Amino acid sequence: MRKICLIGIGAGDPDHLTLQAAKAIGRTDVFFVLDKGEVKQSLVDLRERIIRGYSKPTRKIVEGRDPDRDRTPADYEGTIADWRSRRALVVEELILEHLKEDQQGSLLVWGDPGLYDSSIAIVEEVLARGTVEFEYEVIPGISSVSALAAKHRVPLNRVGRPFQVTTGRRLAEGWPEGVDDVVVMLDAQQAFTAHPDAQIYWGAYVSTPDEILRSGRVAEVADEIVKVRQEARDQHGWIMDTYILKRDA
Amino acid sequence: MRKICLIGIGAGDPDHLTLQAAKAIGRTDVFFVLDKGEVKQSLVDLRERIIRGYSKPTRKIVEGRDPDRDRTPADYEGTIADWRSRRALVVEELILEHLKEDQQGSLLVWGDPGLYDSSIAIVEEVLARGTVEFEYEVIPGISSVSALAAKHRVPLNRVGRPFQVTTGRRLAEGWPEGVDDVVVMLDAQQAFTAHPDAQIYWGAYVSTPDEILRSGRVAEVADEIVKVRQEARDQHGWIMDTYILKRDA
Ligand SMILES: C[S@@+](CC[C@H](N)C(=O)[O-])C[C@H]1O[C@@H](n2cnc3c(N)ncnc32)[C@H](O)[C@@H]1O
Ligand SMILES: C[S@@+](CC[C@H](N)C(=O)[O-])C[C@H]1O[C@@H](n2cnc3c(N)ncnc32)[C@H](O)[C@@H]1O
Repeated sequence: MRKICLIGIGAGDPDHLTLQAAKAIGRTDVFFVLDKGEVKQSLVDLRERIIRGYSKPTRKIVEGRDPDRDRTPADYEGTIADWRSRRALVVEELILEHLKEDQQGSLLVWGDPGLYDSSIAIVEEVLARGTVEFEYEVIPGISSVSALAAKHRVPLNRVGRPFQVTTGRRLAEGWPEGVDDVVVMLDAQQAFTAHPDAQIYWGAYVSTPDEILRSGRVAEVADEIVKVRQEARDQHGWIMDTYILKRDA
Repeated sequence: MRKICLIGIGAGDPDHLTLQAAKAIGRTDVFFVLDKGEVKQSLVDLRERIIRGYSKPTRKIVEGRDPDRDRTPADYEGTIADWRSRRALVVEELILEHLKEDQQGSLLVWGDPGLYDSSIAIVEEVLARGTVEFEYEVIPGISSVSALAAKHRVPLNRVGRPFQVTTGRRLAEGWPEGVDDVVVMLDAQQAFTAHPDAQIYWGAYVSTPDEILRSGRVAEVADEIVKVRQEARDQHGWIMDTYILKRDA
């Protein structure tokens, strides 16, 4: 039986790698790389460094043609679903073409595979198509959320209380119901600026050499965050940032 | 300057340890163990195994007297706050007594230190007391949430949508507002049974040799989960379980 492994590699620091992930990398016969066009060079570099560091000499690396997608679609969820399906076809093709019956093929996943990542859905879609059979396994990774909280030394929740993880797009619709602690990912619009009284714990490129951290009352630090975010984005050509908002209970 | 390090060690599998955590363990001069009376023997064993595996020969292990706490208090948050303060005193004492000026003292934290854990608050309280000065660092770990999602191979969120992390106590007050995906920790009352139409992905002792996983529509699997949970609890004398609930959007 073929085996597919989705391996969480952490959120930027090569030392976020778990022993479990390193061992799974060591067992891998074929690494599938799908998104070389999409992710930025420093992420591609980290992945290659990790593969070089922990894989066996006989492993192969094969690249799939990454389907294009509209980066600012009107229908975000529909566009993502369509792009997932096209990516599933690419993965199916890679498996059929490059993975022998008794081999393990792996995909390295940024952060934790359970968090705002499409790899699990893609593999499920390949399985559902029924053209190729395989076992598959998911290996958890340090998420950008855990990495951010650790860098700011701030707990995600308050004692016995809930928190929500959401996107910038959702936060822009208003503070979520029923929680005073919110983690925001995928925010291209700096939706935090609408909540001046909250405390913010913000980080860009967290746990990479380019890491930037800022925290304070939104009213006091929002301008500064907007400014350094723009500067960093201009300098690097891209940005990856996450933040935690906490308001008085 | 003294240094304190809170090190996330993952949720049960010794291979959840990150390289970053292993290195921090290797630098540690003194390990503080606080909760030996509170956590169960298998957790104590895992911690000892990790210390033995990655620490330097000269390191010391010192145990603090763990303050008692009411396990079923009427005022949960108040009781926890009081118990934290007493624990902070224990930590302060351990630092003053056992950690030299230029040494690193570490606490190994179950899962991720940012998630339903009091270590950060305890260290902040010691700092706020001002009796002893130190730097401190938090090292993220694989949380039971990431571990559970990986074992069930299920994403925590749906595309572009939020999810909430909460406790059994809160879920018992009703399904949280504004989310269709919920992660539930610290549930002693099986609050999921009130949501028969949801899908549940349940796990006990996840990523340990005693792991039990169940999933399905709550209406169909709730009885079975309640039964195996009770049996496992009777057999081990304790249980640690978490689940994800997903309802139709
Ligand atoms: C497609 S999601 C992937 C999340 C990933 N699976 C994880 O566990 O972190 C991408 C988002 O993750 C966040 N992110 C990932 N890595 C980050 C980092 N090193 N620093 C800050 N944010 C990061 C940003 O919010 C970004 O928009
Ligand atoms: C005090 S909290 C600590 C959480 C920890 N910091 C983490 O990141 O997983 C304890 C709760 O975590 C969950 N938990 C921790 N380890 C677990 C495991 N191996 N399997 C299932 N649940 C676990 C249970 O819900 C338990 O009630």
